[in-house]
Amino acid sequence: MKFATAELNSRIFIGLVLDDKIMDLQKAEKKLFEFETIPDTLIECVREGEKFVQHISQLVEWYKKKDNIESASFIYPLADVKLLAPIPKPQKNIICIGKNYRDHAIEMGSEQDIQEEMMVFTKAPTAVIGHQKEIDIHKNVTAELDYEGELAVVIGKEGRSISKDQAFDHIFGYTIINDVTARDLQKVHKQFFIGKSLDTSCPMGPFLVHHSMVKDLEHLKVETRVNGELRQSGCTKEMLFSIPEIIETLSRGMTLEAGDIIATGTPSGVGNGMNPPRFLKEGDQIDITIEPIGTLSNQMKLL
Amino acid sequence: MKFATAELNSRIFIGLVLDDKIMDLQKAEKKLFEFETIPDTLIECVREGEKFVQHISQLVEWYKKKDNIESASFIYPLADVKLLAPIPKPQKNIICIGKNYRDHAIEMGSEQDIQEEMMVFTKAPTAVIGHQKEIDIHKNVTAELDYEGELAVVIGKEGRSISKDQAFDHIFGYTIINDVTARDLQKVHKQFFIGKSLDTSCPMGPFLVHHSMVKDLEHLKVETRVNGELRQSGCTKEMLFSIPEIIETLSRGMTLEAGDIIATGTPSGVGNGMNPPRFLKEGDQIDITIEPIGTLSNQMKLL
Repeated sequence: MKFATAELNSRIFIGLVLDDKIMDLQKAEKKLFEFETIPDTLIECVREGEKFVQHISQLVEWYKKKDNIESASFIYPLADVKLLAPIPKPQKNIICIGKNYRDHAIEMGSEQDIQEEMMVFTKAPTAVIGHQKEIDIHKNVTAELDYEGELAVVIGKEGRSISKDQAFDHIFGYTIINDVTARDLQKVHKQFFIGKSLDTSCPMGPFLVHHSMVKDLEHLKVETRVNGELRQSGCTKEMLFSIPEIIETLSRGMTLEAGDIIATGTPSGVGNGMNPPRFLKEGDQIDITIEPIGTLSNQMKLL
Repeated sequence: MKFATAELNSRIFIGLVLDDKIMDLQKAEKKLFEFETIPDTLIECVREGEKFVQHISQLVEWYKKKDNIESASFIYPLADVKLLAPIPKPQKNIICIGKNYRDHAIEMGSEQDIQEEMMVFTKAPTAVIGHQKEIDIHKNVTAELDYEGELAVVIGKEGRSISKDQAFDHIFGYTIINDVTARDLQKVHKQFFIGKSLDTSCPMGPFLVHHSMVKDLEHLKVETRVNGELRQSGCTKEMLFSIPEIIETLSRGMTLEAGDIIATGTPSGVGNGMNPPRFLKEGDQIDITIEPIGTLSNQMKLL
């Protein structure tokens, strides 16, 4: 199942993607089941976890059985809606794993940059924007904006001291994050938070995909294109710390909550690693593709 | 005005401290004004900003005029209530300024540790606990837990690109934070988030003091005692980056929101800086005093 937070005619709704269509889940439930249990926001649904997913399965099955139902009131062409970030207002900062792909660590400096222990920083939730929203070039703040295509995990069940073996029980699903970074700020401030937290620097989406759709988490391709040119082409198997290891390490003494978002690091190919570096400029189009999630697209603009 | 989030007989309420008493603001409003406008949580009140503060002023004046009112239903001895963190569930991570006092920067290493640019990291909101709640010793996770007494600013009005001169318009008030840190984790993970975010590692309180009560922000004493022994004794005038500078730098490209919490750094005297280092152990009592806020007290325990 592929979930979205979407907008149509000023109504923001939780949607389920059905090929090239999207179902407004609250409206569908009201029409098909004649009751209303689905929360207003996707993060609340995530907190309900598997109970929510089962409920939606039943809803879809029921819908498929009903032949002659008038569905135009709750199913729309995907192209007609605006997609927001799946979780537009996270409950805390986005947790990010730094230098989690070997070749990216090296391109950011040298072999010395390969970390023995996980490096973890955060991005402010105010930075989150959706698919096709513009990324501010922040002309007066930074001259070195860079992209980082990343697979992000959304936690579905609270826990602490979660072992690697238990980690998958705590994952609701996956989305894509562009961990946009102001390299100059990242360097001078040493701790990464400021360089990672400018407004609009956390595009997220287009969808939140339930874990059941991701058959082989170790072999997802992470591809980033700038103006159509392939810049990053990594595979999740190259991660230095796997997703179960990340969850184990983070939850060692710190409670992970349902709805938490963890960006798992970026492969090599960022603009900062090129010779000479190629930072983002106005008009640049960035597309990050990770199947089966889709492609997250954003354009640089002076806002 | 001194605000608190407090609990009595399983009811969590927003309180106003009146000497050795505390007024349940929602109950007082209902009794005295016969209407109900005060939100359920202090963070919502903070978002209302000066409007809320004026309303409470009127409420208190009205109360003082009424001679024979039965007040036992909404004013209690402060000693009878349990104090929670003023903002028990922050809307995002606590923003923290690293090495913001010269002597502390040096004790953490050498003169090289004095930063030219502000160092900013965050603490997970799940770490927040209140006054007199126990801090977990996290025996299986760290062997080097340390205290850091800090003045914290609570933002009262959203803004971006806030200049130093405008900074005070955006401050609601002040509280105390103990930025409890696992030094071993802080070192091996390089970025500070993990070492700063263990559950119970962010004691906050006891009160949130409105900015009007703080006459001389540049001359507040920050004192930390462990088992009664004075360990930290700093003054806010020693900050390398002043509070207006912090707000200017943070809001350069990043929106600060009402309710955001910024811990402004710790003076010298942490356990890690001693020779040999003296880390926290079970039973240790930590008291951080900053007047006019009060004293934030917590005890170490194996939880």
